[in-house]
Amino acid sequence: MADLKSKFLNVYSVLKSELLEDPAFEFTDASRQWVERMLDYNVPGGKLNRGLSVIDSYQLLQQGRELTEDEIFQASALGWCIEWLQAFFLVLDDMMDGSHTRRGQPCWFRLPKVGLIAANDGVLLRNHIPRILKKHFRQKPYYVDLVDLFNEVEFQTASGQLIDLITTIDGEKDLSKYSLSIHRRIVQYKTAYYSFYLSVACALLMSGEELDKHIDVKNLLVDMGIYFQVQDDYLDCFGDPETIGKIGTDIEDFKCSWLVVKALELSNEEQKKILHENYGNPDPAKVAKVKALYKELDLQGVFAEYERQSYEKLISSIEAHPSKAVQEVLKSFLGKIYKRKK
Amino acid sequence: MADLKSKFLNVYSVLKSELLEDPAFEFTDASRQWVERMLDYNVPGGKLNRGLSVIDSYQLLQQGRELTEDEIFQASALGWCIEWLQAFFLVLDDMMDGSHTRRGQPCWFRLPKVGLIAANDGVLLRNHIPRILKKHFRQKPYYVDLVDLFNEVEFQTASGQLIDLITTIDGEKDLSKYSLSIHRRIVQYKTAYYSFYLSVACALLMSGEELDKHIDVKNLLVDMGIYFQVQDDYLDCFGDPETIGKIGTDIEDFKCSWLVVKALELSNEEQKKILHENYGNPDPAKVAKVKALYKELDLQGVFAEYERQSYEKLISSIEAHPSKAVQEVLKSFLGKIYKRKK
Repeated sequence: MADLKSKFLNVYSVLKSELLEDPAFEFTDASRQWVERMLDYNVPGGKLNRGLSVIDSYQLLQQGRELTEDEIFQASALGWCIEWLQAFFLVLDDMMDGSHTRRGQPCWFRLPKVGLIAANDGVLLRNHIPRILKKHFRQKPYYVDLVDLFNEVEFQTASGQLIDLITTIDGEKDLSKYSLSIHRRIVQYKTAYYSFYLSVACALLMSGEELDKHIDVKNLLVDMGIYFQVQDDYLDCFGDPETIGKIGTDIEDFKCSWLVVKALELSNEEQKKILHENYGNPDPAKVAKVKALYKELDLQGVFAEYERQSYEKLISSIEAHPSKAVQEVLKSFLGKIYKRKK
Repeated sequence: MADLKSKFLNVYSVLKSELLEDPAFEFTDASRQWVERMLDYNVPGGKLNRGLSVIDSYQLLQQGRELTEDEIFQASALGWCIEWLQAFFLVLDDMMDGSHTRRGQPCWFRLPKVGLIAANDGVLLRNHIPRILKKHFRQKPYYVDLVDLFNEVEFQTASGQLIDLITTIDGEKDLSKYSLSIHRRIVQYKTAYYSFYLSVACALLMSGEELDKHIDVKNLLVDMGIYFQVQDDYLDCFGDPETIGKIGTDIEDFKCSWLVVKALELSNEEQKKILHENYGNPDPAKVAKVKALYKELDLQGVFAEYERQSYEKLISSIEAHPSKAVQEVLKSFLGKIYKRKK
């Protein structure tokens, strides 16, 4: 595994070098240096789970057969395309949200010389994906499906982001807009497709599968992605800050979190009033009132039950799948997230 | 022609309706309304030259044969993809430049509820292109080339924009960075590919041509695009504000204009000093000094000679092309821009 990760990281260097020598553009020295710095700052610094999942999933789909160096390179390149896509979204999201830090360093747009140029850098990150795909997959029979896949998932993610943005527009803090249905839509489109479905879809295409025949796999992974985000929302409030590595601020930030939509659903009129009066405010006393209400409504118990039911449903759907190899891929994803504490 | 334009505008309505019902995403009412308003605000309000050129060029390549309704629809859809691409760039550029107005109305990001959400709207505009291509061209033999074409041209445009942005970074007003070579690179990548080459490339693909066999056409159109932008730079200072519809501010804005790089090239040390001391400042006295120097260097005469030579070179290259139909396409473009006053 350590070996696989170091191979994966080597592929990053190869792809970066190729992009910096792309014959479709005449770089100046300054622009080549800019792009290199921008890539190193934004692409490889995360946990790389999404990218590594492509190799893992492809390996499982090949049922233990040892992969060739070419296959490892190609699965890694697709994994990096997902990491590039993630970097593109994060650069723009941080700018739109006015965030300060990301992965333990200032957000890219916060660097003195960058500022709003970050918007164009985001676009460049996004443009690197088809450059990588064209260079390494143009001759593959699944090339067109790969390009379509990345385009569709990007469209879905940006559309989910739109709902999230317009639901939480500043100055219109209106809890009545929040519901489980809106929450599910934001999470499904903004997170689940690119974080869960995309890596498996890449591995399926590399294995010669047609995605149209795996709608059930897509639906399962999207459900897993939703479950994953609900955990995230839960941990933001009830997780151990030491373990998750940050102090949650969803309540202060008026986030459309699973906790607040669940609280709205379970509240009587009086409790709803407490939410309306206290949610989305940095005042610690108001935050404490929201947390007290969450406890009064036993959201910890409600979440435990949600987690149990989600797991059972997912497992039984997975076990109904005709392919053992696909079952293994899906179980591997579920195993990584079930009852996670961070 | 009026008929063609109204047909073209009808296709916009069709494409918009399809995008607002895209089955890959579950719109909420609010998000559907947002996207519709965003499209109407940003996509159809320009001169539509780039989009209409696809139909014109395709018509000429078909050598006068009357086009079917399907062909007109498809050429129009490709034309609209270029307009969508343009809208995507303009929304982001205006945000990055801090511009105030565009096409006679406030820039999209200036609208009270929009702000930085404009970055995501730009991404959505860009994502609409592959949605349109997939819906209407997925079964065409040239589908993959079409998708590759839009990706490559977008990559080139964003890369040109990067050089432009880092060459003019605020607070580092350094004329020594400006040269004809940098100017050519910015213009070629940021403007020429998407404004000149892309429409003809679309028409060639629709006509069953392979783009690899038309590198000469690409180079010619890129040269025309550069010539077009030099005219633009010239008119910004020497054009009639009544005719061009705006008062140029390239000198004030420290733009890497053809005039300033030509002036740098032709200046002695003393004249260079005047440029360094006065270029890029809103003070009217300083602007006047730059303009006086431009006149002293006879940039009007230099431009007239550049225009004459460009025209001759372009015409003789065009006439060397083996296909009469392609010649007609290229001459039609050149005819529209030669000695333009606006």
